[in-house]
Parts: sequence; C-alpha cells; structure tokens
Amino acid sequence: MASTTGRLFRVTTWGESHGPAIGAVVDGCPPGLALSAADLQPDLDRRRPGQSSLTSQRSEGDLVAIESGVFEGRTTGTAISLRIANKDAKPGAYEHLKDLFRPSHADLTYHQKSRGHRDWRGGGRASARETAARVAAAGIARKILADRWGVEVVAWVEAVADVTAHVDPAGVDRAAVDAHAVRCPDAPAAAAMAEAIAAARKDKDTVGGVVTCVARGVPAGWGEPVFDKLDADLAKACLSIPAAKGFESGAGFAGARMRGSTHNDAFEPDGAGGIRTATNRSGGVQGGISNGMPVVFRVAFKPVATHFLPQQTVDTEGRPVTLQAKGRHDPCVVPRAVPIVEAAALLTLADHALRQTAQLGGSPHER
Amino acid sequence: MASTTGRLFRVTTWGESHGPAIGAVVDGCPPGLALSAADLQPDLDRRRPGQSSLTSQRSEGDLVAIESGVFEGRTTGTAISLRIANKDAKPGAYEHLKDLFRPSHADLTYHQKSRGHRDWRGGGRASARETAARVAAAGIARKILADRWGVEVVAWVEAVADVTAHVDPAGVDRAAVDAHAVRCPDAPAAAAMAEAIAAARKDKDTVGGVVTCVARGVPAGWGEPVFDKLDADLAKACLSIPAAKGFESGAGFAGARMRGSTHNDAFEPDGAGGIRTATNRSGGVQGGISNGMPVVFRVAFKPVATHFLPQQTVDTEGRPVTLQAKGRHDPCVVPRAVPIVEAAALLTLADHALRQTAQLGGSPHER
Amino acid sequence: MASTTGRLFRVTTWGESHGPAIGAVVDGCPPGLALSAADLQPDLDRRRPGQSSLTSQRSEGDLVAIESGVFEGRTTGTAISLRIANKDAKPGAYEHLKDLFRPSHADLTYHQKSRGHRDWRGGGRASARETAARVAAAGIARKILADRWGVEVVAWVEAVADVTAHVDPAGVDRAAVDAHAVRCPDAPAAAAMAEAIAAARKDKDTVGGVVTCVARGVPAGWGEPVFDKLDADLAKACLSIPAAKGFESGAGFAGARMRGSTHNDAFEPDGAGGIRTATNRSGGVQGGISNGMPVVFRVAFKPVATHFLPQQTVDTEGRPVTLQAKGRHDPCVVPRAVPIVEAAALLTLADHALRQTAQLGGSPHER
Amino acid sequence: MASTTGRLFRVTTWGESHGPAIGAVVDGCPPGLALSAADLQPDLDRRRPGQSSLTSQRSEGDLVAIESGVFEGRTTGTAISLRIANKDAKPGAYEHLKDLFRPSHADLTYHQKSRGHRDWRGGGRASARETAARVAAAGIARKILADRWGVEVVAWVEAVADVTAHVDPAGVDRAAVDAHAVRCPDAPAAAAMAEAIAAARKDKDTVGGVVTCVARGVPAGWGEPVFDKLDADLAKACLSIPAAKGFESGAGFAGARMRGSTHNDAFEPDGAGGIRTATNRSGGVQGGISNGMPVVFRVAFKPVATHFLPQQTVDTEGRPVTLQAKGRHDPCVVPRAVPIVEAAALLTLADHALRQTAQLGGSPHER
Repeated sequence: MASTTGRLFRVTTWGESHGPAIGAVVDGCPPGLALSAADLQPDLDRRRPGQSSLTSQRSEGDLVAIESGVFEGRTTGTAISLRIANKDAKPGAYEHLKDLFRPSHADLTYHQKSRGHRDWRGGGRASARETAARVAAAGIARKILADRWGVEVVAWVEAVADVTAHVDPAGVDRAAVDAHAVRCPDAPAAAAMAEAIAAARKDKDTVGGVVTCVARGVPAGWGEPVFDKLDADLAKACLSIPAAKGFESGAGFAGARMRGSTHNDAFEPDGAGGIRTATNRSGGVQGGISNGMPVVFRVAFKPVATHFLPQQTVDTEGRPVTLQAKGRHDPCVVPRAVPIVEAAALLTLADHALRQTAQLGGSPHER
Repeated sequence: MASTTGRLFRVTTWGESHGPAIGAVVDGCPPGLALSAADLQPDLDRRRPGQSSLTSQRSEGDLVAIESGVFEGRTTGTAISLRIANKDAKPGAYEHLKDLFRPSHADLTYHQKSRGHRDWRGGGRASARETAARVAAAGIARKILADRWGVEVVAWVEAVADVTAHVDPAGVDRAAVDAHAVRCPDAPAAAAMAEAIAAARKDKDTVGGVVTCVARGVPAGWGEPVFDKLDADLAKACLSIPAAKGFESGAGFAGARMRGSTHNDAFEPDGAGGIRTATNRSGGVQGGISNGMPVVFRVAFKPVATHFLPQQTVDTEGRPVTLQAKGRHDPCVVPRAVPIVEAAALLTLADHALRQTAQLGGSPHER
Repeated sequence: MASTTGRLFRVTTWGESHGPAIGAVVDGCPPGLALSAADLQPDLDRRRPGQSSLTSQRSEGDLVAIESGVFEGRTTGTAISLRIANKDAKPGAYEHLKDLFRPSHADLTYHQKSRGHRDWRGGGRASARETAARVAAAGIARKILADRWGVEVVAWVEAVADVTAHVDPAGVDRAAVDAHAVRCPDAPAAAAMAEAIAAARKDKDTVGGVVTCVARGVPAGWGEPVFDKLDADLAKACLSIPAAKGFESGAGFAGARMRGSTHNDAFEPDGAGGIRTATNRSGGVQGGISNGMPVVFRVAFKPVATHFLPQQTVDTEGRPVTLQAKGRHDPCVVPRAVPIVEAAALLTLADHALRQTAQLGGSPHER
Repeated sequence: MASTTGRLFRVTTWGESHGPAIGAVVDGCPPGLALSAADLQPDLDRRRPGQSSLTSQRSEGDLVAIESGVFEGRTTGTAISLRIANKDAKPGAYEHLKDLFRPSHADLTYHQKSRGHRDWRGGGRASARETAARVAAAGIARKILADRWGVEVVAWVEAVADVTAHVDPAGVDRAAVDAHAVRCPDAPAAAAMAEAIAAARKDKDTVGGVVTCVARGVPAGWGEPVFDKLDADLAKACLSIPAAKGFESGAGFAGARMRGSTHNDAFEPDGAGGIRTATNRSGGVQGGISNGMPVVFRVAFKPVATHFLPQQTVDTEGRPVTLQAKGRHDPCVVPRAVPIVEAAALLTLADHALRQTAQLGGSPHER
C-alpha cells in the first residue's frame, strides 16, 4: 500500500515526474456530492511550479481531468479517477544525472530498494510532482468536509530559514495567505522571508522552513483510540510529503519544556451548552481524538536538496564525483508546500470523518 | 483498525487500565523463531511503574503469558496471543473522577466520541497502561530484527524540562541508558534531569521531555514510496504514544533553519564496496527509504497532565468545578517512555522488513 | 492478516486446539450496545462438541469471558477481547500423530508452510476449535444487526450425504432448526440424515453435507461495487470455515443451467411504496449489493477427514505408513457447522452495515 | 476498498462502461520484471466483445497503455497505471433505460445504494466492462508467477446450459481452450455448447454456464491460516466477477455427498523426495493452504440478464412497466469469462506468493 492512503476515504496515486501523466484514484467518496474538475483546479494551481519568481520555472498547466465516478455533475460513490498529463516533461534534462546519486535526494535509496530499477528522470516516483495527485484528490475531501461538516482547512508559511511569523490560527484565511507570494499572512515576516529566499538564490543555495496548518470546525470525536489517533495519522500524512522532516501538534516540542500546570488546557463552558478549552496547547486533539477546538499542527521542511554549489557525491559505480547542479529548481519549496500540507490534513480528516460516521451514524444506542 | 497496526507484522492490542487484563495479538510473525515469555519480560519491566522514586508508585508485576502461536519454544507463524493480568488495579481510586473531565486527559474526548459510554477508571482504554501490550509485542519484533537482520534499537531521554543531554547515536547502548534511573546516558545531564523532576514534584507539578531513538544496522531499502515512507510510519507510531506531541527525523525542525549546502549529506565510499553519507542529517532515511546509516528520530512528550495543583474544569453536566488530583502519578513519564518509543520503532521496522522481503525476497529479476 | 477479518467490524482470532485458550479481539463495534457474556454463550453452546450422540464426545464448557471493551454492561467502542479457556485439552492423545500427515487434514500443508514449525496436537491452529472464537465474536455482530437494523440470520442443514431437505427460507426460525439434533427443520429429512450419519458411523466412515443460510431484513444497499461485493465477502467468509469446499448464492450452480427468461427475478411494487422481486433466484444480491430480499446462500462441507478405516499416508520422513485413527471424532460436522455459517454471515453483514453507514450515514447530499 | 483487492499485490480499478476510459493501478509489483503493454494485450483480446458470432457485437480495440511504474522496459516497484480508452462507447443507446430497472441487473441496487446517484449508461460501474481492467492487471501477475515460480493458470468452459464437458486439468493448455470459439477444449462438447447458445439466441433468450480453472506449479505453502485461506480468497475473487453465483474447490458440492473414505486424498511419495496425493479431490488446497498439487476450482455463471423477450419490471417511480431489450448483447458470457476467471486466480495467487515470501523469504530460522 505504498501508494494508497486512508481506510474509508482511500486515495491511490501513481505516476513519475517525466512519464506521460500522473494521477489518483479516490475510492469511498459518498455519492451525491456536486463535483467537477473546476473544484480541484485552484489548489493544483497553488501547488504548481512557475507561479512567481520565488519558485521554480517549470511551467505545467497541471490540468486535471475526472475520468470516472462522477455522473451528471455528482459523485456516484464509485472510484473517482483523476489524471494530470505531464505537458512540460523534459526528461533529456536529467541525462547527466543518470549515473550518479544527488546528495539528500532519493536517488540512492530508490536505487538500493529496487536493485537498480529506478526511473532516474527528475526523481521519478520520488519527485514532489507526485504531490499534485494528492492535492487533486484532497480537493474532493475539501468539498465533503465543507459541505457536510463545515470544516475549513488553512495552512501558511510560518518560518523560512530563520524568519518566523506570528499568525493567529483562529482567524487566518486563504486570502490572507495568498496575498503574498511566499504564502505568509504576516506581511513583515513575508517580506523578510522573500529576502531570505532571494539571498539564498543569490548564494546559489537553498532554504527550508515550517508550514503551520489549522482545521477549524472539526467536531469532537474524530480520531481513534490507540494506533489511529488523529494526530498520529496527521503526522504520517505530513511526514509522507517530500522534504518533510518534522511534525508537531499543539505546543509540540515547545510543550516538552513546559510544566503541566502551564501546559494544561482548562475546560470551561462554551456559553452554548458545550465545553471548550480556555487555551489550545493540545492543538485540538486530546488522547488522539478531536475535542472541537481548532486542530493545529506544524510541519518542518528541510532545505531544498538541489543547490547550485559544487557537492561531493558518488556515481552508480561507487566512484567519488563532484556534482554541479543545473536546470530549474526552487530555492525554497515551502510556499508551494502550503496546499500539500492542506491536502495531508484534508485526506486525513475526511477518512476519520467517515470512520466516526460508521461507528455512530444513526446509532440508536443511547442510554 | 483503531487497535491494530502494521501491514504484515500486525499487532492488535486490547484492554483497559482497570479491567481484568490487557493484551496483544501478534499476527504475521515468521515461523521458527525461538521465543518465550522471558524474552519479552525485560522491556515490560523497564516500562512498568514503581521502578524508582522518579516514577509512579503503582506496582504491577506485569507478567506476560504467551497463550498461542508458540510450540515447543518456537513460533509457528500463527497468531501469538500475549496477555498481562492487571494485578494492582484499584478502580475504586477513580470514583471521584467519574463525573468530571481531567484537563488535557482524554476523558472529555472519549466521552464525546462514544456519546458517554466510556470506562472512566484511570483513563480506561486511553491509559498509558495500554502501552504495556505494545512493549510486549515489540519484544518479538526485537528478536526477529536482531536474529535476521542484526538490527539494534536503543532509545534514551534526551531532554527533561529545559535540561538537554548530548549523546552520540552511533555508540550509545542500553547499559548506558539504564545506568541512571532517568534513562539518560549523559551522566551530568541525567543528574540535572533528576533534579528537575524532583523540583517539579516538590512544586506539585509535572514536566515533559524528549526521547531520542536510534536503529543501527537497518539495511538500505526499507520504507515505501509515497504514503508509507519509513519516517512517516515511524512518526505515526510515535504520535500514537500517549502524551507524544512531536516527532522529528534527522535534523528535523533544526534542519528547517539550515541552508541546503549545510544540511545535505555528501555521499562517499564506505571503504567496503558500499556507499555511506559523510554526515547523517537525513537521520538514515532519504525519500522515505532507509539508506543504511543509523535511523535517528526524536519524540516530544508534553508534561504529565495530572499534577497536584488545583485546576479549573467542568463536570459531565458542563458545570465548572475545581479539580484537586490525588493518588499515584508520575511527575515525569519520559524515563518510562524509553521502552515505549523503542517499541514504536521495533514494530514499524519489523513490518517494513517483511514488506521489503515480500518485494525482493529471492527475486531472480536482476538485469 | 491471516487471523483478521473485516474492514470496520474487525475480528482477530488466536489460539490452538490444545493450547491454554483461544480467543478473539473485536474492534470497531459501535459504543452503547448492551452486551454481556450471556449474549454470546448460546451460539457457543450450539457449536461445541458433545451435544448429542451425533457429534463428537469431547466435552468443553466453552465458557467465554469478556476481558475488555465493555463497561457497566455496554460497549465503549474500544477493542472487545473474548477468551475461552481450553478446559478439556488432551494433547497427549495426539502423540501418535506427531510424525505423520493425516490425509485431507492440514497437517502436511502447515508443515510445508512453516518449514516444520507446526503445533501437531489436534490440528493446532487448523483445528475447527478455532471457529469457537468466530462464533463468540459473531454473537456481538448478531446483537448489533438485530438492534440497529432488525436483521435476523438463520442457518440449517439442507443436506447430509445424499439426503436433501426442503425448507422455506422465508419462514424458518431457530426453534425449528434446533428441534432436531441434526439441525434440519424438515423433520422427515432430519430423520433420514440421522440415519445416514449413524450408518456411516457404523461403517467407521464419515459424511459431508450442505448448510443453507438466510439473512432476513437486510436493507437494500449493503455490499460494494467491484471487489467487495456482498456475496463475494460471504463466499470468502464461508470458504474460510474448515472443511468448506463450495459456496453458492441464490440459484447458484443450478442457475447456470437455466435460461435468462427463467432465472431473472421480475421487479414489482411491494405494496408499501417500495420494490421487491417476484422471485428470489438472485438470493437477495444483485450486482454484489443487497436488494432488500432475503439473502440466501449455501455452503458445501466435505466429509470429515478422520474416519476409522485404515488409510494410506506418509510420515514426516516421507515414508509410506498406514494410519488407523482413534479417539473422539464426529462422523458428521454439518450440524455443528450451522452456528459457524451463521457466524460467517453475521460478521460479513455487520462489516458491510458499517461500511454503508460510513458512506451514507447522515448524508445531506440529496438532490 | 470496494475497488481495491490484494494485500501486497494490490490492484485498484476505476471506470464506467460509457465514460472516457477505464483502468487499474497495480501497486506492490516487484521491481525488475520485464513488462510492456504487449504482454497484457492478448488476454484483453480474449476478453473483449465481438470476437465471434457467439459473443456481443460491440467492437472495442481495448488497447491498454502503461502510464507509470515501468522504465526502460522493466518494472521499478512503484505503482503501475494501466488505462484503456472507451472507444466504442455509445451512451445514447441506453437513454431508454434511464428511468427503469432491468431485472437481475444491478440497476436497482446501485440506485438504492447511492440514493439515486448512479451512472445508468450500460450498467455504469456495474458493467462487465470493468473486468477489462482486472484482466489487464492480471497480465502482470501472470508474468511474475510464470517467471519467478513457474506457475501456469488455464481456465476453460466446462458447462453451458445443460451441456457438460470432460477435461483433464493436468494436461489442458490455452491452445486447446482457444481452438473453439466457445473456449471448451472438449471438441464434441464445444460443438454442443455452440448449438445451445445458438438455440437460445434464436429464442431471444440467454444461457449460463460453468468455468473451470487450474493453476499448475503452485508450490506448497501458499494461503494463510483462518480467514485468508487460499480457496477463500479465490472464492471471493471469483464471486466478485459479474454474473458469478457459485464457487467450488476440488470436489466441491459433489464432495459433500461422498463418504470420507472415498473423498480423502491418500498421501504418497512423489518419487522425487517429496509428497503428493494419489487423487486430488482437495483441489490442491488443504486447510486453506496449497499442497503442491494442481489448484482446481469451478465458477458458476447465471444466464445473461438481458434477453430479448418481454420482461416485467418497474420504473424509477415504482410503476410497473414492460421492458423490451434492444441493442448488442451476448446470449452467453461464459466464453469471455474464461480470461476473467484466470485473472481472479492470477491476482489471488500473486498476492499469496508475495505474502508467503514475506514470511519465509530468506529465513534463517531453521531448526
């Protein structure tokens, strides 16, 4: 199941960076949802390269086609096939990388895993291009979550290099995120991030950063005891994004330095007959299950592995060589990671929404 | 599958903190492995409460019995049932908590998820006692990984409150970890951690911390493309541990502040015909697949939710109440989390070991 | 997942015929269901040996204990552990079979599969005793299906050797089935079956037979397109019963000889605003999905492999030997297979009930 | 997972009969397998309509394209996407069926399952056209099984209406099967079957039949204890084929009438150091695990639901109507079911091959 995720809302992706196309099959979507390719395109456009001078210059239309599972504008509950043609593939551009292993890429590990049978063109299956399929699939999850439960998922760039933004998860919206090319809604921080990226580019180097994501409107009760905790599944979904190396929920690593009396979220009446927490250091998840507060988490991305300074590596024969990268590459992927982190959240939440529905939907088992 | 983890090496746990017993069923273990309860007991003893003045005073024998799947001292390849009786259960001790929600525990979320049908005694299914079943099951994984692949997994306490240790993942071993009750192999740091824990206890408060884990001897090629990356599955396994709120692999969040030219791990010949990285900021995983270097990751634990200062909360009728905790509780769970984090690593690695064996075992498909 | 079945209502069984105990873990059960061991015991009593002179003389209490997942008489939605101690195990009785392979048993195949590491006592994991765990778990499914959807599952012996009964699936109930020890509600046929079994026993031989099962009250819409069709999952569940060698749904193999104009079930109004079929040769399933009519299927059981005539076989060294069986063995398992076939139906239906609930539960996506 | 099958060799299909395309994603295939579309085309050609006057007149090229997972002629171990364009779709031809339910088709059940959101054109997702995707995917399984284990799978038509063939599973091959359009290698029976089909066509009626399948060369040890028995998984795969209503393994239903002394397969040395059975009434599977003998099973297909005689049914408003079918339809699907049954066997066997490899591959755990 390398290429499949989810228990009930199931997504299977396929495709290599420089093959004819990439795609996803989404199975388990409830029937009757209004859906067209136009619903999925906006997030694909946010993810694709070539959007600004901050990101890479590869220009793909990334137009998604729905090839099954939708009839007369609504889902039928059967498998939905999404396909995105690779229009701007230039496999020849990677010929010089065929016989060597780029440091901190997946070239060597794929080579080792498959005993040499890997597609070396632009990272092949390991390319971040694969995430376009996830983003397309997550557009369906976004619609279901919004229509049925009123859930809203927004992510933004919280840090680039050593610049950190200050953003309120309770109020941030997509318009504010997309207002700056760097996708940080804290304007002064966004400007400083853009400078850090430009400085790295000038130095032929790259930077990493952190994306924060909030899901608002998640009802209490999503997530499962023991292994399939909501934050455990979010962590898996986020760490499966290329270049992601860390995940934290709520106060996360900073919380590990707090005392319990500081960290605990006191419960209080919410004024509408329910219960809320006075603070949200738990990030909306307690014991692995949502508590009705905003679900908040952060994902760390390492700096882009392809920089333009000389690097020491070895070739497929094990001989030391010096690599000098060329071509089109982002100095920073974090702005484009925003819709990908949202996709990780959306797919995870849609799956848990259906799981909780299965256990409690229509249940008459009240005391 | 709330209570099941793994695709091929599958573990299903069951049991509540104050029920008659807890246990695990391990399915998919290869046949012929020498196994007895004595193989599993040492890690259970490391996890159980009451080991030192640093940890809680509940005293459980936590003796595990193997009830199936082993015949004449060897596994048969069928389901292995492990059972641990709850000998020191004192459900009456929780009667006063029956009708209220302890802050930053799972009381409220389990209540919400199950529409009120929860076992409120000592956290019920959400109790960290459940992890004893994982630790027992992981003892089987530890044997397989050691016997068949020579893999060794060691975790330790890297931080408690604001005390941080300095430990070399390449050389640390269990003896050094267990030499101090706090399970930190950096002796001066261990002493400072013990002081921090004692200070919190004196203040009726609690502390959190960080556990680091290394898996040495993992061959290149474990982990799957796209969704089931090795570090994604490690992240999920770790975030499913009670009180865990963060995970990072390799340089993790710190790496997000580095430039690519600093972060990248140069490849070089290993002197034995293979390839190694000169540094290991990737934490032994690149593109989600192991590269043969030590797999290194860290897990953040929030401070223990039960402290002995007054706390604001609400009862099951939604009325504000003040909670004053009593009874036996750790001021710091991090030393006991060490074998639990190891268990997360062991179960994940055993599963991926079998997955890679399935794809490549005995393959004649070489060019 | 050899020992696990189900996607949402998940059952994992464990245990060998002559180990200390057998059991099952049931995960995914909705919370709030009233449940006690007394709910599960009746079907266990129907399955156990020693009920009449027609069946084997091994006498087990087969008392089931619920060790988790139920609190104050109701399910909590967490894993339910069921355990049945093996009280009448006599492993010594099998010592003479240790080094040979009984024909048409699983001795050889388990030996081959595990490279010799098998529990040879009474069939070990392959023993039909394992089905007691399924029957216990299915008792939970029976309660959910009855409480929430009004589904009723009844099976009976339709054939033994060459005696075939005539039973109306629309009206048969458990009382009629259990009225005769052979569990056939057609009294003259039951008497003839009992004679056929007695005749085989007298000849030191054994017989097989057919069990038919009906599920009444299954709403339209259960079952999934393509691979997880309702009758496909029923077939798998039934063929996983020891000694089962055939499955047919509706008109089954006889239908393959009909013409379409004879076989088709005409649709007609049901007089209550719905639609029914005038006949039910489809067995309540069309295109893999229930249509609201009774779900009807049949399972063929081969004759019991252990008879008391001399048999040619080989020992573990591959040398020809003659086997002369001794001990306690049924000449016909079919009457005891009745609750096991019901269990297969119940587990399958409960899983699909939750799956359909997940997709449609509370859906506002109507046109 | 309606549209996904397999644990390790995983196939996900998608597509409707009259949408733009259908396809399959195959995940888990070992790397290094030589593969091109030409390997998959022959079985697609055997399945497609319009092959002879016996089958329907729809003419599809059914050309499969491999869109991922293969590089330089070999599999890379990543997801393989197969796509078949629907070139001859004529959705308008079904306009008259839009508002009624064809008897013994899936029109009503899909309507009920999805609350009316179904693709009614030619059966939509329930169309047997979907099986083209399975057959394409199974072509990959066929290559792996042949290359790595020497397994050969051959199916044939054993019965049509009341004509039954006599075929020796030990020797039958594809050339003999395909020698007659009806795909029965018993020439006189084939001629009689063709007559029965022609007679039904003349009467505006349809017929059903039985397909038998043998897998030769399956090593001992495939299949899992308890739920995932080899014949249980074969049964599920076969019952998931449209129009399949019965499955039997080995002696099957006929075996249920035998005595044990007749049915049992005696073990004997095979003359090459191994063990074989003197007969094969077990159909190559004992206790759910292969024993090294040919795996033999049969699948019953009901008569084609669309005949050209008037039929009573209801429309989507529940009003009685008379249906008079028109258009292109097979009077008998059984000849075209041959490659589909082979596909069911191939996918099941490939999955179990990898599962057994995972447990035993390279194991040093010998006594």
